[in-house]
Amino acid sequence: MPKKEKKPGGESRKDSWVTYRPEIKVVDATVRDGGLMNNHRFEDGFVKAVLEACVAAGVDYVELGYKADKKIFAPAENGPWKYCDEDALRRIVGENRTATKICVMADAERTDYHHDILPKKESVIDCIRVATYIHQIPTAIDMIMDAHDKGYETTLNLMSVSVVKEKDLDDALTSLVKTPVGTIYLVDSFGALYSEQVRDLTKKYLKVVKGTGKQVGIHMHNNQQLAYANTIEGIVLGANRLDGTIMGLGRGAGNCPMELLLGFLRNPKYDIRPILKCATEVLFPLRQKMEWGYSIPYMVTGQMNVHPRSAIRWRAGETPDDYIRFYDQMMQEES
Amino acid sequence: MPKKEKKPGGESRKDSWVTYRPEIKVVDATVRDGGLMNNHRFEDGFVKAVLEACVAAGVDYVELGYKADKKIFAPAENGPWKYCDEDALRRIVGENRTATKICVMADAERTDYHHDILPKKESVIDCIRVATYIHQIPTAIDMIMDAHDKGYETTLNLMSVSVVKEKDLDDALTSLVKTPVGTIYLVDSFGALYSEQVRDLTKKYLKVVKGTGKQVGIHMHNNQQLAYANTIEGIVLGANRLDGTIMGLGRGAGNCPMELLLGFLRNPKYDIRPILKCATEVLFPLRQKMEWGYSIPYMVTGQMNVHPRSAIRWRAGETPDDYIRFYDQMMQEES
Repeated sequence: MPKKEKKPGGESRKDSWVTYRPEIKVVDATVRDGGLMNNHRFEDGFVKAVLEACVAAGVDYVELGYKADKKIFAPAENGPWKYCDEDALRRIVGENRTATKICVMADAERTDYHHDILPKKESVIDCIRVATYIHQIPTAIDMIMDAHDKGYETTLNLMSVSVVKEKDLDDALTSLVKTPVGTIYLVDSFGALYSEQVRDLTKKYLKVVKGTGKQVGIHMHNNQQLAYANTIEGIVLGANRLDGTIMGLGRGAGNCPMELLLGFLRNPKYDIRPILKCATEVLFPLRQKMEWGYSIPYMVTGQMNVHPRSAIRWRAGETPDDYIRFYDQMMQEES
Repeated sequence: MPKKEKKPGGESRKDSWVTYRPEIKVVDATVRDGGLMNNHRFEDGFVKAVLEACVAAGVDYVELGYKADKKIFAPAENGPWKYCDEDALRRIVGENRTATKICVMADAERTDYHHDILPKKESVIDCIRVATYIHQIPTAIDMIMDAHDKGYETTLNLMSVSVVKEKDLDDALTSLVKTPVGTIYLVDSFGALYSEQVRDLTKKYLKVVKGTGKQVGIHMHNNQQLAYANTIEGIVLGANRLDGTIMGLGRGAGNCPMELLLGFLRNPKYDIRPILKCATEVLFPLRQKMEWGYSIPYMVTGQMNVHPRSAIRWRAGETPDDYIRFYDQMMQEES
């Protein structure tokens, strides 16, 4: 397990498989990322089951959805976890007396954050995760400031980094590190990154946050069956915020499976058993009704380093397993 | 793609993603590893389709089955690819006028190699891959000598390396490097290795073969969704013989998918399209009748670093998706 342990009390030695790194925090994004597949229409029972499993498993954060702007996203077309209104959250978590913190995602330019994100003392939310594309960084920074001023922990999730130019990324990181953001996330939205790229990027992010007390986070997708492997890559280098979802639930090829991640982490505060129970009782039944996870069309878009939307459409179409026709179609579009 | 290029003409620079390593050879084990699931009872049409796809894709070697001892394994209970008799092979490959070489696997102590492996000039087989457990190394070495003397290329596939003691492994490698074997394979039979372990082991194997002209091979299983990632790990360090199977076909959690592997390799001699065509037309239909690939029970045995046989039985049983009961059962057995 993780090298890099340096803290006193860690008792760890480099190259040891027996130790763990106490600074690591795990974030469950099952309900938030999974909600992209059903317009966030999960029933309360599902959300409660995932939350309870994560609490029992010792997962540090659970992300329940978005704070989407109702002017842009009509409430008639989306379930409650698209907005995460305070009353909806409290139906699930009450006052949240557990050690597990609650987070929500706020998309740059798609969130009425001044209005919809309440002061921390009025909310059960602990952490606001600001998701942004590279061109939205100024808005994202304003959102970080707003959430920080209101009393929240914050993360900045810079999406689709596999198509961001080196110079732009450097500029963005230089700006971000001057903000009060707590964690800067490496996000492989297209599931396109290979381990060497994850290594180089993680090192870059870690270098930028060095000495600031900020952490680096890892959020990977499974288009090339590398979500878990690339998460490990980040861990070994020193990333301390790790996203996963139970059974990898998430749009398209899905995410790093929480059960694999907890199996890798040797930190005794984590317990894989409640996650496997929830997988058996809640996620497996869901998968009988809804498809997610790796298949060849996602591999094709991952290898091409493009958004998986054409693969998602193909999998929902008439011939989801005609891989060769999908490949040919993508090749034609590329020309 | 692969660093480590040093040969003249390679034009490669370290850290480049644009170059490739011409020394790399890919081995398709679809029919051989897949045969473990149906006692090697593939019809000729299936075997021909896989072979033709690999030839068209530029795959360097295709492995069609075992040379099992008929005294130990009754022909009434197994299909032709358990034995790979010369007439069966020739029904498929004729005189094999292609650039793709044919290999078969010969298990130590389960092969009547003196009798069943013909002199090379009487056979269409190009390469004998000797599979061995650590305690069978003396027999395996005798088999390597025999195959070499008969005129074949050889590989030595040391299985289940995740449970081999360091000292025993060092002794085995020291003995093997003195033989005429062409390639020594790192084989993760249990799908238990993490990337750092693959890194350390690959470095060890490479160090042993350094200066001998021998190559290091990589054969991974997907119990923890790491077969492809760990194969990449080996490639980046300098392993030049890479096993994959189309759609990951193989017993239990299966193997490194050939389509992912060829997508990673930038060598222009490889073409992913024939593999995707074969996946669509031959492997996908097979998967409607036969299960293979990652699921949580395989993850559990992989995390425990034990043989996947209990997970294979569980997946074939009454409650294949009762992950929590399988986990509890494995925990009880561990005590």
